[in-house]
Amino acid sequence: MRIAQVAPLYEAVPPKLYGGTERVVAHLCDALTELGHEVTLFATADARTEARLVPVRDQAMRLDREPLKSDLAAHLAMLYDVRRRCSQFDVVHFHVDMLHFPMFEQHAHKCLTTLHGRLDMKDLASVYARWSNFGLVSISNAQRAPLPRANWLDTVSHGVPAALYPFNAYPSGGGYLAFLGRISPEKRPDVAIRVALRAAIPLKIAAKVDAVDVVYFDTVIRPLLDHPLIDYIGEIGDERKSEFLAHARALLFPIDWPEPFGLVMIEAMACGTPVIAWKRGSVPEVVEQGISGFIVNSDDEALAAIARLPNVERWRVRAAFERRFTATVMAHGYLEVYTRLLERRRPHEPYESRA
Amino acid sequence: MRIAQVAPLYEAVPPKLYGGTERVVAHLCDALTELGHEVTLFATADARTEARLVPVRDQAMRLDREPLKSDLAAHLAMLYDVRRRCSQFDVVHFHVDMLHFPMFEQHAHKCLTTLHGRLDMKDLASVYARWSNFGLVSISNAQRAPLPRANWLDTVSHGVPAALYPFNAYPSGGGYLAFLGRISPEKRPDVAIRVALRAAIPLKIAAKVDAVDVVYFDTVIRPLLDHPLIDYIGEIGDERKSEFLAHARALLFPIDWPEPFGLVMIEAMACGTPVIAWKRGSVPEVVEQGISGFIVNSDDEALAAIARLPNVERWRVRAAFERRFTATVMAHGYLEVYTRLLERRRPHEPYESRA
Repeated sequence: MRIAQVAPLYEAVPPKLYGGTERVVAHLCDALTELGHEVTLFATADARTEARLVPVRDQAMRLDREPLKSDLAAHLAMLYDVRRRCSQFDVVHFHVDMLHFPMFEQHAHKCLTTLHGRLDMKDLASVYARWSNFGLVSISNAQRAPLPRANWLDTVSHGVPAALYPFNAYPSGGGYLAFLGRISPEKRPDVAIRVALRAAIPLKIAAKVDAVDVVYFDTVIRPLLDHPLIDYIGEIGDERKSEFLAHARALLFPIDWPEPFGLVMIEAMACGTPVIAWKRGSVPEVVEQGISGFIVNSDDEALAAIARLPNVERWRVRAAFERRFTATVMAHGYLEVYTRLLERRRPHEPYESRA
Repeated sequence: MRIAQVAPLYEAVPPKLYGGTERVVAHLCDALTELGHEVTLFATADARTEARLVPVRDQAMRLDREPLKSDLAAHLAMLYDVRRRCSQFDVVHFHVDMLHFPMFEQHAHKCLTTLHGRLDMKDLASVYARWSNFGLVSISNAQRAPLPRANWLDTVSHGVPAALYPFNAYPSGGGYLAFLGRISPEKRPDVAIRVALRAAIPLKIAAKVDAVDVVYFDTVIRPLLDHPLIDYIGEIGDERKSEFLAHARALLFPIDWPEPFGLVMIEAMACGTPVIAWKRGSVPEVVEQGISGFIVNSDDEALAAIARLPNVERWRVRAAFERRFTATVMAHGYLEVYTRLLERRRPHEPYESRA
């Protein structure tokens, strides 16, 4: 199949540091290519991919030191070029939310759009109602809740390459708790710190701080870091991430927002590291209670889960990952949707009925 | 003429507090309507206009307390509805940068786009090159510098209604210096404070602080406010603005960026208040040296200008405003471009050659 993947331009594909969507696109491109498909990736020139790369900007936007730049202009220019080559592809798979709808109205039948973000936002429904002929994929069933009548074709879980995060049966380093991601109110690093202190277990925090979260970091989080059990190590890249996750006793994922997927959960699971995640958004669809981790509702439940960690077998965490969350599983999920698009039959049954 | 005006959705038309673009759109709608044209305004429902309003969102986005909202979705939904009614208009005049290009490719011949922002940004050229059939209007000649080859049809200066800012021949209140706008590094409120202190003249600062500028305000500006000559009064609405400007001895406009227009300069001039402006961007096109104010390059030149203020006759400042910067003058400028669009002859001579 001749497949175009259209990535956002904020981070490299895959990202050099933090970044979810571009990482998933990278994994999908490589997995589809390995399955023998002809994949073309539209992305910034710093991408590393098995697919054929069409570079549309010299570098990813977030780490571009040029202060004066336009996200919108960069994406519109890319989409213009994608459209010019549209006839070369059987399927064009977009990861840029809704921005391509106006430009691909004549090609909607061969377009697929994965929505990567939260959808409980004012103004979104008006767009998905107007361009309802574009088929959508959700990354969890929970993600769909605010837009139940959108043109959903399927849910396809994220996946990461089975070899990227090697399984680690025996974590060394004293078995700390890990927090990985972004310092922001909805990720609740404060809860992670509180729980770790109550459990009297070291917590390592690897996280970036966006400009918008500097005040939150300085006023709420920084004062909590001054404790011997708490170790803030800043933003880390891929090369350190797998070690960081593999040697943790568990990943704490104390989210306080409708997380659409939560890639870090399956990255931890790939290492055999169980996940203690608060029950919001996708969490019940990703974590298998007592097998790959624990789904909790409160600090107390999290502490109880920590106490039960010795009962979790790390190879079973890895097995849960391999069954549902490898990049190859994800690629097969998308190939099924692509095939349906090509056959022009697009049943609207909910995901559950197909299981 | 049947004219559609398509406003950004960030502020009300006109804005309740700070905001340039939506204010200009408001003035343009009213002036065109008064000249007998059939004007339809696409904007948020809180607009106040002489035109026929098509409300496309319940309220403007910036002051909407809903934290989860999508600028992009709101604008795309509006543009979809504009396009559906496109055949009802002779001209569709956009004030939303480039976002409408993909959706109006079939209608470019009847579209006009005023660019309201700075254009010295990476990524912009790639968009204006791809959609070069859309005719553009600049708000100063200086604004064009980074994109000299874009499809410029004309420069039309902003205008404000002659009656909105009443002329004030004799300012009371001791004749303070005024700073009005936004607290941000490129607006240089610190320079305004420094100059006022050296001149030993009171300075009143009426300005909003955006979230992105809170750190700058707290660390750089707030420490400078604790002086009896400096009076920070926060963000003010229209009803106070005219009094604020009218009673000033001069407006200080110490910008340190390529200002595309600088609406506040002509608002001050309308009151008869001279403008002391730093020579960047549009300033030499707006301020007439020694007549409506002074164009300066340094603190010392600003102090010299302050010393010369008694030589400036306020009625001549007002006259300079009335000659070039009323809303009616602006409306005539745009009508000329609309007419050219309708006649399908679009000469590309630079603005200067038409003067």
